[in-house]
Amino acid sequence: MKLRVALAQINPTVGDLAGNAELIAQTVKKAQEQSANLIVFPEMIVTGYPVEDLALRPSFQAASIKAIEEIAASITGDVVAVVGYLDKGPKNCVAVIHDGKIKARYVKRHLPNYGVFDEFRNFVAGDESLVVRIHGVDVAVAICEDIWHSLDSISARTPGLLVVPNGSPFERNKDDVRLALVQKRAKEIGAPVAYVNMTGGQDDLVFDGDTIVVGKDASLLARTAQFDDELIVIDIDCIEGSSKPDVVISQEPAVHSDSLNSSIATPLSDEAEMWAGLVMGLRDYVGKNGFKSVVLGLSGGIDSALVAAIAIDALGAKRVNGVAMPSKYSSSHSVEDAQALADATGIHFRITPIAPMVDAYMGNMVLKGLAEENLQARVRGTTLMGISNQEGHLVLATGNKSELAVGYSTLYGDAVGGFAPIKDIYKTDVWALATWRNAQAVAAGQTAPIPQRSITKEPSAELRPDQKDSDSLPDYALLDQVLRAYVDEDHGYEALLADGFDPELVRRVISLVDKAEFKRRQYPPGTKVSGRAFGKDRRLPMTSRWNEK
Amino acid sequence: MKLRVALAQINPTVGDLAGNAELIAQTVKKAQEQSANLIVFPEMIVTGYPVEDLALRPSFQAASIKAIEEIAASITGDVVAVVGYLDKGPKNCVAVIHDGKIKARYVKRHLPNYGVFDEFRNFVAGDESLVVRIHGVDVAVAICEDIWHSLDSISARTPGLLVVPNGSPFERNKDDVRLALVQKRAKEIGAPVAYVNMTGGQDDLVFDGDTIVVGKDASLLARTAQFDDELIVIDIDCIEGSSKPDVVISQEPAVHSDSLNSSIATPLSDEAEMWAGLVMGLRDYVGKNGFKSVVLGLSGGIDSALVAAIAIDALGAKRVNGVAMPSKYSSSHSVEDAQALADATGIHFRITPIAPMVDAYMGNMVLKGLAEENLQARVRGTTLMGISNQEGHLVLATGNKSELAVGYSTLYGDAVGGFAPIKDIYKTDVWALATWRNAQAVAAGQTAPIPQRSITKEPSAELRPDQKDSDSLPDYALLDQVLRAYVDEDHGYEALLADGFDPELVRRVISLVDKAEFKRRQYPPGTKVSGRAFGKDRRLPMTSRWNEK
Repeated sequence: MKLRVALAQINPTVGDLAGNAELIAQTVKKAQEQSANLIVFPEMIVTGYPVEDLALRPSFQAASIKAIEEIAASITGDVVAVVGYLDKGPKNCVAVIHDGKIKARYVKRHLPNYGVFDEFRNFVAGDESLVVRIHGVDVAVAICEDIWHSLDSISARTPGLLVVPNGSPFERNKDDVRLALVQKRAKEIGAPVAYVNMTGGQDDLVFDGDTIVVGKDASLLARTAQFDDELIVIDIDCIEGSSKPDVVISQEPAVHSDSLNSSIATPLSDEAEMWAGLVMGLRDYVGKNGFKSVVLGLSGGIDSALVAAIAIDALGAKRVNGVAMPSKYSSSHSVEDAQALADATGIHFRITPIAPMVDAYMGNMVLKGLAEENLQARVRGTTLMGISNQEGHLVLATGNKSELAVGYSTLYGDAVGGFAPIKDIYKTDVWALATWRNAQAVAAGQTAPIPQRSITKEPSAELRPDQKDSDSLPDYALLDQVLRAYVDEDHGYEALLADGFDPELVRRVISLVDKAEFKRRQYPPGTKVSGRAFGKDRRLPMTSRWNEK
Repeated sequence: MKLRVALAQINPTVGDLAGNAELIAQTVKKAQEQSANLIVFPEMIVTGYPVEDLALRPSFQAASIKAIEEIAASITGDVVAVVGYLDKGPKNCVAVIHDGKIKARYVKRHLPNYGVFDEFRNFVAGDESLVVRIHGVDVAVAICEDIWHSLDSISARTPGLLVVPNGSPFERNKDDVRLALVQKRAKEIGAPVAYVNMTGGQDDLVFDGDTIVVGKDASLLARTAQFDDELIVIDIDCIEGSSKPDVVISQEPAVHSDSLNSSIATPLSDEAEMWAGLVMGLRDYVGKNGFKSVVLGLSGGIDSALVAAIAIDALGAKRVNGVAMPSKYSSSHSVEDAQALADATGIHFRITPIAPMVDAYMGNMVLKGLAEENLQARVRGTTLMGISNQEGHLVLATGNKSELAVGYSTLYGDAVGGFAPIKDIYKTDVWALATWRNAQAVAAGQTAPIPQRSITKEPSAELRPDQKDSDSLPDYALLDQVLRAYVDEDHGYEALLADGFDPELVRRVISLVDKAEFKRRQYPPGTKVSGRAFGKDRRLPMTSRWNEK
């Protein structure tokens, strides 16, 4: 028997209870216009997700409960709404709303507490399943992490449909894993599954949507385009209720004069989904924090060029400010390539040589070698922060994951910023994304944003004469392979040798990574898109004598 | 029946498995010289504590297991040793060692996962009690958090003695809570309790020892001096075994020709224990991270003067470098008071005026108002980092908890540093501790380290003409009261009004605190000694539209 189900792939804002309630109301209205019998929202849509320790604050819990009660009162008519919110406990909860009232509640049973998740800290788990009969269909509910664990207790209740609100962060290739999981669960419970996920950036996390509907035979019935806000409304062929529901909302089969199917979006390519994640992560960090514009240093190198291209796609060129800050060690092509990017894209651009400031320090202190190198990076950081304070732009840090991993950056220098868009992108991926983004532009008949020489030139910090990254670091192609194994996969020394890496290289990389923890703790947030990102994902003691080798 | 028990209040280093093993060996030897039948070490003494995500690394688990096996093989003779280590799982575990072998293991059953603790993330919990018969006494084991929960399963086994290895971080007044808890548990199980805790600093945490022995009637038998490394050896009157132990190591009663009692140290005063915690936290952060010396800016104000005094007590004056960095807005007493502190204490001192560097920026950029104020702070930060890079000192940030809470500091300016000793000390406590430390010096016939004018002068950032903290902030006496309620106690707006605070003041403070999250995330670690410290203790989203009011 058919049920017309709406799945709301939308972008909430953490803490903006009034704004989220308005977004929910608008979305319910759209679903009602299409005569949906059921609308399902993502996890904790009322509060935004994740709320971290706000969950523990009684005033925030009270505000969330007040909000869900007001939302419930405003939803009338045939439609049943499944709306996630924060309840006392605190509990990560959904309310099942019909006819102006909350008819049932379900509490998330499996709390993730690894990687970026802290849910044992912030919530108490539920221990009961929920089945609600809607137009004769027994609809079961599971929240996000619940479906990564056994669904035996749900299967036992022979549901006619399983709906799954999610706050599932994007990770490279996660779309493949999700679909396979949803299909597996549909087969296990013998019923269709409607999986709805949010979009949007929240600090280090970005949510890509990827809302999925599969039939009881695991066939894919609908799938949204990743990263786009979208309301799916689809008639799902459900199984007639034969079990004992906790609540009966309606018994009579749903009747519709028309029939609604939904489209199946092709998942994005690897580069396209990373790019979309980086753009959305930056756009929402800027917008949700109330900034209007960004500023970044443009060195003529690939990292700052890529960050500029992301910022342009996120905000538009007119909200991006590039600053070239050449020193006496800067190459001639440094300013030329920065200028070329500005010319190609139309961002605001200025040149502020740092020699007068560097000379003032050097004339009043004794700074040599590394101290002099770092000084230049810090003068640039101070210059950007001055512009930020004066003009109100958010400063973007331009470091990549490879540099961050091995500590090849200057604390309070190039690490300065409120957001670090590519902190989770290895250097080899920086090049790949730059090449991909330029090709996309060319294919669309547009000007490539990133100067070709920024992609092809040998990487250099340009902090001393003829400096090259390769003076201090292994070749990036090799370095990134070791880092993926050591950082993302947690392979220890012996495991890295078994992976086939040279022992001397492994010892060198391990030593660099293990020493850089303090810098990583001081680094601004940046969108997590792949593997294990530094930050909440990985928590190591700063004071430690442990040497992996 | 008597058992001679040694309790090792010692200071391990996280990750230094060889060093910790050597410390354990030396301590066992000392206990054997006093014919101890049983020696108990603090929680995870082999690895140090807390190890955070190192626990998840297979190579680290393997190294810990190898270490405990080697330690076991080296312990021979009558003594039984209870030694905490990391096992696979990962598990927070103790080994009960006798005659060169591990005779039993116990896995921590209650994992703390609030405030600074992340143990659900890093360990799996045990689910079994352990009772080992030693010289006819049934000795039960509990690890740290275990005794904060019901001990019914232990009581049911009628132990003759309960031993409790701990990694219990210091917090103001925690000593009172600990003793009361240990006494309560002794009464409940009807047996003596031997509670042993580590000393030392580990990133934000500091462990104060406070090792305690109580009799079965809850009478206090022994207590160590807080923050001192110490080996207690005491004859405890235990109950003869009548139950069913898991392992019998020895049955015959212990015989000793002499009788050993231990002293009962008087707990430190509130100021003395905070001071000792601050000194130990800084000393260990510097030493365990391989630094020899520190550098800090001396403004003539109270915060930097107090940090200097802490550093001097932690490291000795000769390892402390003070730098006065006057600007055109600095008062005449700024450099005078900094000089007076240097003269009184014998630290290294230099004066580096910042005018040339500030002028270089101002001549090449347009910076006004707050942007100009922040510039000065950032020039000072860059100057200190230059000295650090050139000479190898760790930079100390001198901000206090009140400033940090309301964001009254400059990112990449006065917030620069590798460690922030007083980041958990409210401004009113800064003054109280300064007065207390000076009085201690005078009472001991020494020169007071902190110039009196630094204590009595009105607080000012001196970043613009005639600036006072009171231009931007409520009076500190009042501000700190609101902060204690809002930050430490998590009182929301309504609760703060119920506390009796003025609504306008409350709204102002809440607004400042809620806006400062980013700065706090970027702040260096500092010793947690009271209430709720910023950092691991409190995790809020940076992107959030939630307004408490």
